[in-house]
Amino acid sequence: MDVKSALQSARERHLQELKDLLSIPSISALPAHKDDMQKAAEWMANALQKIGMENVNIMPTGGHPVVYGDWLKAEDKPTVLIYGHYDVQPVDPLDLWETPPFEADIRDGKIYARGATDDKGQVFMHIKAVEALMNTYGELPVNVKFCIEGEEEVGSPHLDEFVDQHQELLSANVLVISDNPMLEKGQPSVCYGLRGLCGLQIDVKGAKGDLHSGLYGGGVPNPLHELADLLSSMHDDKGRVSVEGFYDDVIPLSTDEKEAYDDLNYDEESLREELDVPALYGEEGYTFLERTWVRPTLEINGMHGGFQGEGTKTVLPSEASAKITCRLVPGQNPDKIMQLLEQHIERHHSHAVTVNITPFDKGKPFVTPFDHPAIQAAGDSLQHAYGVHPAYTRMGGSLPIAETFSDILDIPIVLMGFGLPTENFHAPNEHFHLENFDKGLEAICHYYNTLGETLK
Amino acid sequence: MDVKSALQSARERHLQELKDLLSIPSISALPAHKDDMQKAAEWMANALQKIGMENVNIMPTGGHPVVYGDWLKAEDKPTVLIYGHYDVQPVDPLDLWETPPFEADIRDGKIYARGATDDKGQVFMHIKAVEALMNTYGELPVNVKFCIEGEEEVGSPHLDEFVDQHQELLSANVLVISDNPMLEKGQPSVCYGLRGLCGLQIDVKGAKGDLHSGLYGGGVPNPLHELADLLSSMHDDKGRVSVEGFYDDVIPLSTDEKEAYDDLNYDEESLREELDVPALYGEEGYTFLERTWVRPTLEINGMHGGFQGEGTKTVLPSEASAKITCRLVPGQNPDKIMQLLEQHIERHHSHAVTVNITPFDKGKPFVTPFDHPAIQAAGDSLQHAYGVHPAYTRMGGSLPIAETFSDILDIPIVLMGFGLPTENFHAPNEHFHLENFDKGLEAICHYYNTLGETLK
Repeated sequence: MDVKSALQSARERHLQELKDLLSIPSISALPAHKDDMQKAAEWMANALQKIGMENVNIMPTGGHPVVYGDWLKAEDKPTVLIYGHYDVQPVDPLDLWETPPFEADIRDGKIYARGATDDKGQVFMHIKAVEALMNTYGELPVNVKFCIEGEEEVGSPHLDEFVDQHQELLSANVLVISDNPMLEKGQPSVCYGLRGLCGLQIDVKGAKGDLHSGLYGGGVPNPLHELADLLSSMHDDKGRVSVEGFYDDVIPLSTDEKEAYDDLNYDEESLREELDVPALYGEEGYTFLERTWVRPTLEINGMHGGFQGEGTKTVLPSEASAKITCRLVPGQNPDKIMQLLEQHIERHHSHAVTVNITPFDKGKPFVTPFDHPAIQAAGDSLQHAYGVHPAYTRMGGSLPIAETFSDILDIPIVLMGFGLPTENFHAPNEHFHLENFDKGLEAICHYYNTLGETLK
Repeated sequence: MDVKSALQSARERHLQELKDLLSIPSISALPAHKDDMQKAAEWMANALQKIGMENVNIMPTGGHPVVYGDWLKAEDKPTVLIYGHYDVQPVDPLDLWETPPFEADIRDGKIYARGATDDKGQVFMHIKAVEALMNTYGELPVNVKFCIEGEEEVGSPHLDEFVDQHQELLSANVLVISDNPMLEKGQPSVCYGLRGLCGLQIDVKGAKGDLHSGLYGGGVPNPLHELADLLSSMHDDKGRVSVEGFYDDVIPLSTDEKEAYDDLNYDEESLREELDVPALYGEEGYTFLERTWVRPTLEINGMHGGFQGEGTKTVLPSEASAKITCRLVPGQNPDKIMQLLEQHIERHHSHAVTVNITPFDKGKPFVTPFDHPAIQAAGDSLQHAYGVHPAYTRMGGSLPIAETFSDILDIPIVLMGFGLPTENFHAPNEHFHLENFDKGLEAICHYYNTLGETLK
């Protein structure tokens, strides 16, 4: 029997097992669900045990435990680390769910439940793919290690420490994560890069208290003017960041990658309509995908000062604040960029006011080389299962867990998501398309087979 | 007997009467004090009747009534309209008052009570000055009209309509108002100009909802950037407003006036220290007094958009807003300036966003010519009573009542205040220095005598 047949004949059992997993309300954010968290961890450990994993262990952390299990008998073969999480988001507002969030319901080719796509459904696929390979060949084409955490939905507060303390246990040749959506329905994608992050708050202070704008206006520094000038000085009129040195270390996009993005024929006009903006906007000379995937940015996330109520109040405020974050791309170092930002602010602010800077947490960008065999093999496997050319993408956001593994284990990462952007993860009526469950299982099996042959 | 002796011999009676007036809690903002408002109006009407005013009338408005009274028997003499108000501010927080707000207490040469300086004490002085003149000469050197309203502390919502409906009744050669502080203790001053006002709210809209700054940042217009650019475009680096045409109609300061301001030797360094700013700031080439009295300004009074809480949130906000007001000087027309502002915004904003403008109420600047006899006579009278050279000032703020009278009656206005900036008007422990009560009475009597001789 081949793997595909094994998957097909096990389909009903798979769905029953998945429904069982989805019935556990493992909401990591709510202390009332502590027992459910333990139950979900045990469910995962049992599932790993049943498919022949060894060293299965529910490992304590400062918060909810990590479930680990491995199979390391594929001599001279690479090791694949599989990351996933068994915790889910809260479910309120409950009355917007068409069926109860913890009673999985299959309708219209989709399975509806909290966790269906994020991430129980997707990590379950890896377990079942490994099971199918094992049942078919009696062994696995690669060594595998599962690392399934229970705190992703609360920001993985203990994952850094856990990975740091278990570097040898977790060491591998590639990390595979299925916890993200594919580009769109029918368009499978491999994501191989994420932007990094650094940011800061700017607090501008003028006079010691608010003043009457009639009596003092025009004669006393206004922190709002100063803040507007400072923020305005950070971009030029071509949409480029004008902080000196900002682009110095940016690694330019390779021709192959640019072609791969152009091949996607991304429809900017549809996006513009969907967002309902008069025009898209950004750094001159780049497409929307390039601007958000491979170009660094500086965004004001918030600003405030003075009167914000209805109507008018003739106040000359004492203080004004803004928060900005930069998305960084491979080559850029968050610490260096923070320094450049501070220098820019210092150089540009009027000395009639006091300016204070508070840095926020930083995150490094990561990219697995486009031509890395683990990336190309992922694309090939998606093509095999879906019969369409896969998209090679990066993401504009940051993924703290990817940074953790990339930083501590220095490991290439493949993001191979089977969810869809429209599947209501984090919202009522979360669901997962069974079409992607089926094709994804096939793709994962094919991927592990290919990795066994190509990855060293 | 001369007027000065008449004032001196009546002093104890004056203070008793003032205490009686101050005992009425005529708080216009609080509906619970409606009866007290009526009582205070009646008190004023009686006081006018007793000093020989005719046509005394408590005239209804849409809110609290206006008290009117006149004496028009000075043939071929000018008519002086005297404005004041009998309403007072609320008194909370009550526990910060050292003596009860409506039980006037005299200590250290000051009378403490709500309304002592703003404005019962000051309008009372005009009544007593007229009484002293009448008692001394059996007639008055000028015709007088009293207009004492009861809604100044709530923004005089019915004064426009009242003045408009009684233009003939209120017509006069000069309006005298004592409802403002003098420059500082020992420095009597005549204020002869106020700035006007216009303002607007700018609402910038980008995408139809907030977006994730990682996924969309750099590729979608950010309304906060747009707002910062717009606001920054409104000033140049010399502190000048760079809205095209903004200064076109400004009437330059005359040499006489500039000299009068320079003579004040205003201490900018003390102000800087008091406000605790690293430096004062404003339009290059002007002093602080010039910047705030005779130069127009554009101030941002408030702005906000995006995330304003603690820490960071990587949002690319959908909307951003700012409120700005301009202070205008004689020559400038608020409607025209509004138009220039709208044109500037239209010209400068990116067409990747939508910008909405909401105008606020406008107010015209006013100035009584510096060399007008009513202004110079006011200065002479202050010099006579105080024995020091008076300050001729303007004010940076706007005074809606002055605009009402100036606009509807087209009348020169003299602001001759006897309060001090430190007398806690609108705050607990409001008080009034008896030194200014005494010298002020003398100055007012001298002023009416002089006006009778010089004003046509």
